[in-house]
Amino acid sequence: MASNGMRERPQALIFDVFGTLVDWREGVATCCRQAFAEKSIDRDPYHFADRWRGEYQPAMQPIREGERDYVALDQLHLENLARTLDETGLASAFDRTELGELARAWEKLPPWPDVPDALARLRQNHLIAPCSNGSIALMVRLARYAGLPWDTVLGAEIARSYKPDPEVYRKSVSALGLRPAQVMMVAAHNDDLVAARAAGLATAFIPRPREHGEDQKSDLLPLQDWDYLAATLTDLADQLNAPAV
Amino acid sequence: MASNGMRERPQALIFDVFGTLVDWREGVATCCRQAFAEKSIDRDPYHFADRWRGEYQPAMQPIREGERDYVALDQLHLENLARTLDETGLASAFDRTELGELARAWEKLPPWPDVPDALARLRQNHLIAPCSNGSIALMVRLARYAGLPWDTVLGAEIARSYKPDPEVYRKSVSALGLRPAQVMMVAAHNDDLVAARAAGLATAFIPRPREHGEDQKSDLLPLQDWDYLAATLTDLADQLNAPAV
Repeated sequence: MASNGMRERPQALIFDVFGTLVDWREGVATCCRQAFAEKSIDRDPYHFADRWRGEYQPAMQPIREGERDYVALDQLHLENLARTLDETGLASAFDRTELGELARAWEKLPPWPDVPDALARLRQNHLIAPCSNGSIALMVRLARYAGLPWDTVLGAEIARSYKPDPEVYRKSVSALGLRPAQVMMVAAHNDDLVAARAAGLATAFIPRPREHGEDQKSDLLPLQDWDYLAATLTDLADQLNAPAV
Repeated sequence: MASNGMRERPQALIFDVFGTLVDWREGVATCCRQAFAEKSIDRDPYHFADRWRGEYQPAMQPIREGERDYVALDQLHLENLARTLDETGLASAFDRTELGELARAWEKLPPWPDVPDALARLRQNHLIAPCSNGSIALMVRLARYAGLPWDTVLGAEIARSYKPDPEVYRKSVSALGLRPAQVMMVAAHNDDLVAARAAGLATAFIPRPREHGEDQKSDLLPLQDWDYLAATLTDLADQLNAPAV
């Protein structure tokens, strides 16, 4: 894909993770399929994963608006799972320990195939960090599982708020000792990049047209003239002259 | 060395950095020697490094006591350098840009020889992170320079205070989603371990008898029955059954 490329070269890249780097839907469905099989529950694990994920944005909203103190995403995932099981008539099937184990499905998400190698390349000429709504505890375990060689974990927990609150981008940038224009946000979601650009960061868009499955309608195309457009993370590594590993 | 080893096996290791993993005195003196040579200043760089470092604890104290808002150690290093240059009659020799560059000496500190390999081993069966008074910006650059393969950066900036404030240890543990007893603090300084133990963490002591040069008097021996005593980080990796890389 063509890139705008008019800005100063970024010194650091910060990344959305769920959807941009890892296939949360496949990973969560895999854990649900296994948990359901152990209890002979006959439900579509993708449908369940989509419902659970459907609780994600509404759960963060009271924290973004200051109506609830920051709690880590792990806690919200647990609450959302309990609600989803309740609404689908499965609340009694899982005890408290099993609920906690299944909530950790978000630590075991496969990377998109291009990600581990391209991230290792990009690491050679940039600082790299997640700028995700995931907690530090979640990000370090997911990084081990998916092979994401971060310099450090930035994002929601540093700022004690959730994207797209501008503080999440600003505090991630300042934690690196850099100015916003020296840092580029990489995401598969236009709304994430809208917020990053408003905070002064450079922006790179990578479409992930199967994040939500076969019938995805959103984020298939860039909705603004983002600084970089890349078909894959490998394409972005090429555009940023990241050396081979 | 013998180890106590009566506690549960730690899942994560968090590390003091300056002195325990890297030779700050040699690294700072090297940068000062070079800066002095460029200006034909004839001063002992080790003596200057010791004086600069002498400002370190007093500068953090008002922040620990809540008399000053948290500022990152980079800023304190800069202020302390300016004061040290002033007190040694060198204030006029460095302009603002040169001052900022020399203050970044703390990003270029050599690891003790046992550290890179032993840390890579320990990473294979533990989460590993610095729990230093250094900022995130400083720790990520020092990690690149010294070869420290962290999962994430914890410590002062997460807690917005300075060790030995117990909050620094507590917040570093909770950021990993663990209980204090599941985390071990590794340090060459008894006072760091006193504070970590008081916060409920396991403790490992590694003496660094040349941290302060040939005539070091402090921290040559363990002053309590720390959970692990190790002659080097390699020895600790052996005791914790860390596999070869």
